[in-house]
Amino acid sequence: MSLFLSVVPVSEAVATVHRLSGQVPEETVPLAEACGRVLAADVHADVDIPGFTRSVMDGYAVRAADTTGAGDSVPAMLTLRGRIQMGQTADRQVKPGECIYIPTGGILPEGTDAVVMAENTEPFGDEILVKKAVAHNENVIQYNEDFKKGEVVLPQGRRLSAQDVGVLAAVGCADVPVTRRPKIGILSTGNELVPVTDIPMIGQVRDVNSYVIAAFVRDHGCIPVTYGIVRDDRATFEAALAHAVGECDAVLISGGSSKDDRDMAAAVIAERGEVLIHGVAIAPGKPTIIGKCGTVPVIGLPGHPAATFIVLVAIVRHLLDDMTGSAAPEPVTVMAKLAMNVPSTKGREDYIRVSVKDGIATPLFGKSGLLNTLAKSNGVIRVPAESEGIETGREVEIILW
Amino acid sequence: MSLFLSVVPVSEAVATVHRLSGQVPEETVPLAEACGRVLAADVHADVDIPGFTRSVMDGYAVRAADTTGAGDSVPAMLTLRGRIQMGQTADRQVKPGECIYIPTGGILPEGTDAVVMAENTEPFGDEILVKKAVAHNENVIQYNEDFKKGEVVLPQGRRLSAQDVGVLAAVGCADVPVTRRPKIGILSTGNELVPVTDIPMIGQVRDVNSYVIAAFVRDHGCIPVTYGIVRDDRATFEAALAHAVGECDAVLISGGSSKDDRDMAAAVIAERGEVLIHGVAIAPGKPTIIGKCGTVPVIGLPGHPAATFIVLVAIVRHLLDDMTGSAAPEPVTVMAKLAMNVPSTKGREDYIRVSVKDGIATPLFGKSGLLNTLAKSNGVIRVPAESEGIETGREVEIILW
Repeated sequence: MSLFLSVVPVSEAVATVHRLSGQVPEETVPLAEACGRVLAADVHADVDIPGFTRSVMDGYAVRAADTTGAGDSVPAMLTLRGRIQMGQTADRQVKPGECIYIPTGGILPEGTDAVVMAENTEPFGDEILVKKAVAHNENVIQYNEDFKKGEVVLPQGRRLSAQDVGVLAAVGCADVPVTRRPKIGILSTGNELVPVTDIPMIGQVRDVNSYVIAAFVRDHGCIPVTYGIVRDDRATFEAALAHAVGECDAVLISGGSSKDDRDMAAAVIAERGEVLIHGVAIAPGKPTIIGKCGTVPVIGLPGHPAATFIVLVAIVRHLLDDMTGSAAPEPVTVMAKLAMNVPSTKGREDYIRVSVKDGIATPLFGKSGLLNTLAKSNGVIRVPAESEGIETGREVEIILW
Repeated sequence: MSLFLSVVPVSEAVATVHRLSGQVPEETVPLAEACGRVLAADVHADVDIPGFTRSVMDGYAVRAADTTGAGDSVPAMLTLRGRIQMGQTADRQVKPGECIYIPTGGILPEGTDAVVMAENTEPFGDEILVKKAVAHNENVIQYNEDFKKGEVVLPQGRRLSAQDVGVLAAVGCADVPVTRRPKIGILSTGNELVPVTDIPMIGQVRDVNSYVIAAFVRDHGCIPVTYGIVRDDRATFEAALAHAVGECDAVLISGGSSKDDRDMAAAVIAERGEVLIHGVAIAPGKPTIIGKCGTVPVIGLPGHPAATFIVLVAIVRHLLDDMTGSAAPEPVTVMAKLAMNVPSTKGREDYIRVSVKDGIATPLFGKSGLLNTLAKSNGVIRVPAESEGIETGREVEIILW
């Protein structure tokens, strides 16, 4: 086996990942548990919302035309005709020159088309002085202005936010069709690894990646299934991989992906399935493996935590989004000004960790094995393969994490 | 009771909320469940990390000085002295003019100070041709370069990200001291409200806010406790509030906060505790109540979901952050160019929902009761109280949600 990886561009790695990943089946969850899940189907409005024209203020329902020209010095004077009770229709029509008290959310009575805020009025005997003109429809939400019956209110593939949960509540979606959360197996390989509870001896390091990958996977709507530390022994590794492939929708292997003859991840994946890519033009993260065992995608990640994290963000995230059926494959990006020059090597995508604040992105240079710069960063900038670097002061796009 | 609210600036509302909120006690959770939680204490490195100088590449450990001037046409020639096994120290010192094969993560042997990537070498009999010079410490992470023993690796108040979980794993923090998740009671008031499973009749609306508030509260590290729909009846409301105050660390009341005499939230809070603020110069969201019953903060939110959401983001978030002990009180903000003019009323903070994409913020104007613009937005811009609006093309700060 050669010592050299034949690397492919990140775009090819991502395209390969997209081809690999099938979507998991759907299930139904109660609305109160739906936040963060991905819709498995379009959701339609079951009724018109609102089902009646309603006030958005406490005040007086009026004909807007009756308030034309009204101001502090020349108020309009309208005859008060009682009050509307919450949730009830007015017991009479409101005629020109009249008004009726209406609470926020109240049903706008026949004959009126706007609401004057209480703050802009003053009682004057049985009359109400209106000190500010209102326009037609002002302070009113019209019948089905928010959602029309039958309309798609949220599309399949939507990852549900707190606000989306509100939309689902409004349309009566008490049981929400979502994709099942994929089970992602996580294997950490390496004879140098010891459990977190151990004190590492010389040459040993604690198993950081199992935890980082599990947290990332959970953040992306999946269920991590950790298989612990797997020794660099072919039989042990084969057994662990077979176990994970049998139980999970995809498997992530930390370590064992370098093109070193001691590393056997690629060999075992090839034997039990197929290696599609071994080596990606990304820094850090070059020795990434993309393959499959049967229909189960298997990704080999670099052993260094910071490199692993970049590959999670740049490549694995696409796999997780595909499996959960999320239609939002792009992470949130923001623009900021670069605080200092970032050099880069032509021919590979460099991912530079940055700390973004007040529109300024400060690169946190650090070796790919360092955790401290990873924890201090809140995103990365991607330097394209064709670039030799980016100059201070340039606007750059930051992928937030 | 007057129909007029005497409003206070948002800054005063936030300051009041900060005074109200006590931090919840701490507890310990296993590392695998710590992501998203808030550290209740500083975490220190229990050992030096790494505990030995290690390679970050597969390649050859060398003296950097031996590679000076090396290039494709004039390679340096070094005598290969075997290989280092993972997790083991070299069985011999490496002398000038020699090199030794080292895997990623391997212990750098005595006598060497850098690693040449395998890709930049070529075997030549028992010799290795080095085709690229390396600098002192290149491709090496030095002893305790990442974290020094005793150093604070993550501070109290840190909301733990996936990367932070990796840092905790590295320093052996298997049981993580975090703040307990505060229990936040949620009451939805209003005779017009019906459960999500009902078809609303004329004048009725479904209880959207219980779900939106619960999802927001959970997103901010707290446990929502919903008490369902409470009728606009003083005895019922008093009983529900007393129940919630008895069980929770804070209580949020949706609706019943307008300065309408039918609304009794303020009156009941005043009777059973204290109303500190009733009315905030924020749009939407003016009829917000800030008070307490005993030591339990009680916040009254507007009944309109979109207005509620703004108050959650601008004010309630501070309460939740304080209670969880989160030291990150500011939400993630980004800068973007405004796509169109935003008018505003002097004297109140306007929160305008926007959709941000590719550095452009497009305002989604909509009445404060509409859910559809809320769900389409991914943030808000804040127009300060002293401003009369913001012009097209100006850089604005967006609070992402």
